[in-house]
Amino acid sequence: MTSAPTSPLANPWPDSPVLQAAYRARAAAVDLAPLPRAAKDDALRAIADALEVRTQEIVEANARDVERARAAGTSESIIDRLTLTPERVRAIASDVRQVVALPDPVGEVVRGSTLPNGLDLRQVRVPLGVVGIIYEARPNVTVDAAALCLKAGNAVLLRGSSSAYESNSALVRVVRDAVGGAGLPADAVQLVPGESRDSVRELMRARGLVDVLIPRGGASLIRTVVTESTVPVIETGTGNCHVYVDEHADLDMAVEILVNSKAQRPSVCNAAETLLVHQAIADRFLPRALAALAEAGVTVHGDERVLALAAGTPATVEPATPEDWETEYLSYDIAAAVVDSLDAAVAHIRLWTSGHTEAIVTGSQAAARRFTQLVDSTTVAVNASTRFTDGGQFGFGAEIGISTQKLHARGPMGLPELTSTKYIVTGDGHTR
Amino acid sequence: MTSAPTSPLANPWPDSPVLQAAYRARAAAVDLAPLPRAAKDDALRAIADALEVRTQEIVEANARDVERARAAGTSESIIDRLTLTPERVRAIASDVRQVVALPDPVGEVVRGSTLPNGLDLRQVRVPLGVVGIIYEARPNVTVDAAALCLKAGNAVLLRGSSSAYESNSALVRVVRDAVGGAGLPADAVQLVPGESRDSVRELMRARGLVDVLIPRGGASLIRTVVTESTVPVIETGTGNCHVYVDEHADLDMAVEILVNSKAQRPSVCNAAETLLVHQAIADRFLPRALAALAEAGVTVHGDERVLALAAGTPATVEPATPEDWETEYLSYDIAAAVVDSLDAAVAHIRLWTSGHTEAIVTGSQAAARRFTQLVDSTTVAVNASTRFTDGGQFGFGAEIGISTQKLHARGPMGLPELTSTKYIVTGDGHTR
Repeated sequence: MTSAPTSPLANPWPDSPVLQAAYRARAAAVDLAPLPRAAKDDALRAIADALEVRTQEIVEANARDVERARAAGTSESIIDRLTLTPERVRAIASDVRQVVALPDPVGEVVRGSTLPNGLDLRQVRVPLGVVGIIYEARPNVTVDAAALCLKAGNAVLLRGSSSAYESNSALVRVVRDAVGGAGLPADAVQLVPGESRDSVRELMRARGLVDVLIPRGGASLIRTVVTESTVPVIETGTGNCHVYVDEHADLDMAVEILVNSKAQRPSVCNAAETLLVHQAIADRFLPRALAALAEAGVTVHGDERVLALAAGTPATVEPATPEDWETEYLSYDIAAAVVDSLDAAVAHIRLWTSGHTEAIVTGSQAAARRFTQLVDSTTVAVNASTRFTDGGQFGFGAEIGISTQKLHARGPMGLPELTSTKYIVTGDGHTR
Repeated sequence: MTSAPTSPLANPWPDSPVLQAAYRARAAAVDLAPLPRAAKDDALRAIADALEVRTQEIVEANARDVERARAAGTSESIIDRLTLTPERVRAIASDVRQVVALPDPVGEVVRGSTLPNGLDLRQVRVPLGVVGIIYEARPNVTVDAAALCLKAGNAVLLRGSSSAYESNSALVRVVRDAVGGAGLPADAVQLVPGESRDSVRELMRARGLVDVLIPRGGASLIRTVVTESTVPVIETGTGNCHVYVDEHADLDMAVEILVNSKAQRPSVCNAAETLLVHQAIADRFLPRALAALAEAGVTVHGDERVLALAAGTPATVEPATPEDWETEYLSYDIAAAVVDSLDAAVAHIRLWTSGHTEAIVTGSQAAARRFTQLVDSTTVAVNASTRFTDGGQFGFGAEIGISTQKLHARGPMGLPELTSTKYIVTGDGHTR
């Protein structure tokens, strides 16, 4: 004989630091879910203020990470990504204030109607619950992700790179103090304890405590999480993006879009990695394109027809191997091939793409229409750089990542993508 | 040195019948994706017609399954679910014609805007691709699922119960002939080869070929798929639904909603499994409620306070064990407890619910508001039966299942839930 239990949540979870952290996050998520926007915005403002007030503490913790990285012989580019200066901390605080300005997705009525029997039906946005972020990137992700999750009413478990552990610890300490000071549960933001891969593995098995895992980082990390996690995952980021220059392209425009897509910032996922050129304009376009790429410092990995047309240009051109078609260089390299038709370009893309972003340059409405219909990637750009696939560029105000999967969210993920929905059905005693 | 490949899809998949079926489905999905509504509706009409013309063939195949089931000593209720009569085949055809009448979700512009730099941004619905349905239910699911997937531009892999193998084979043969006859790829609809559990296991590992798996059936099947699949899964169906009778409830209404929620059709996932009663009205409500449940043939599994109030009623009441709070009976049984407050009811629900549907009966606007805010299930019903959580009841025209997860889709899933989206960005040579 049992009375109804009244504890808010059962805690049958193993006594591991990771699972207990997740359990506390779950309890915090219950408190966050019904909060109105004003309460969440107050906490976000408190975070921004605290980051500015406690900049010194953050920068000092970061200096210890940087020192350790330098001693380990880490490359200067990675050290630059790791480093927090007072200016960078101010920029992080400013990003948090931008999240304050974004509308709260929670409570939005996605659809609603009165059913024929008089029942009122509303589908309303609600928080996802507990979001786990596994990332290798800069320490600013720690605060960005926390701010976005909080705004959408979610608790967040942050599992950053161990190389940034001191920085992340300091940032999370500051954020938690601010969140608690604003009257919200501090456990809404937690660093996942432990620096080893075991903590990632435990997170992946916390089905029932964690609602979604979002891995951000290298392809191998993402592959591991996607295949091993029993917690639902949103796959992000790998971008083998293509630029297809159609026979009806404006060639000046095509050169500009190509160089911008490849070289404006080669290290990011929306940078182009393969150029496809329609055979009808290859002899006019490629010499100019190769010269422009050479000027931008880009090495070309070309197929036979590209190599033939490269003669006499200042381009650095190497023969392409099959690996080149599937490589996300993230560097000043691009694969290049001549294709017989638009459909051949589509076939090449379908075969090799990671499904992130593909661009067509064309003056033909029919070609643009066919390309956008047949290419199935998160984003298809017509006469625009691949570099626009970005939450900020799309006007979402911020992004938690770029989903390259088809379920739940696809493309840049803003605040609405950090929510679920529920239906509310209201009647006057309706029965079936 | 390599030329760009032009085959539409690489086929590096192991030579297993399941994976090769999935590969053919993927190729078919590529052809389906750009089809306009008219082409898909023609195929659906052809399916409905063919089902009627070839009813005899279907009923005969079904008779062999039924004979086999009877020889195996299968219960009459399961044999009834398995049996196809000419009337039932006509009803299946009629369901397909209802799908014809539904709007095509593909191509819907979910959002669109012109960005400050003049880029046009559109988010457009596209098919998911290849959908795998694993089910134990009636053979009508075979045709329903195929029709819904086709309408949303998806290829479908059907893995039904081995007890319905002959029926499903006949149905899929008829559907494929009709699809092919209408000029669409017949491989858009396939029965997964093999009757053993191995074929399910292969399907769960076909990441990259299959875009989503939707298990429909018993809790253990769903648990297996959810924890073992590397293909993304949409969890469906388990319903431990609650009816909470608030202190401000109209007691007549509460009795009607309770009995309807529990007994109108106890075998389905939106039937109520637990009754929670506010202590302030327990002594007035419970004797009446228990009498009404007794009249409907329902056995009550009550806590101490329920047992005390059951004395002198015609009710069959047994003491509840902790298992009762989490059991989805799917029978004429209900767990029942008295709670001290609305918040205690919410705490009980949060602890035990499967997150499907919870109802509150109350005359208080404040209580309704608090309950709908705090309860986080796919559907929260106010003064209405739990039985309304259903795609047909919600006006979606049809449903492929009821998702009890938070990602991608939550609650009854109609055609839009069988789609993803992509962004189309259109410029005039825009670069960053």
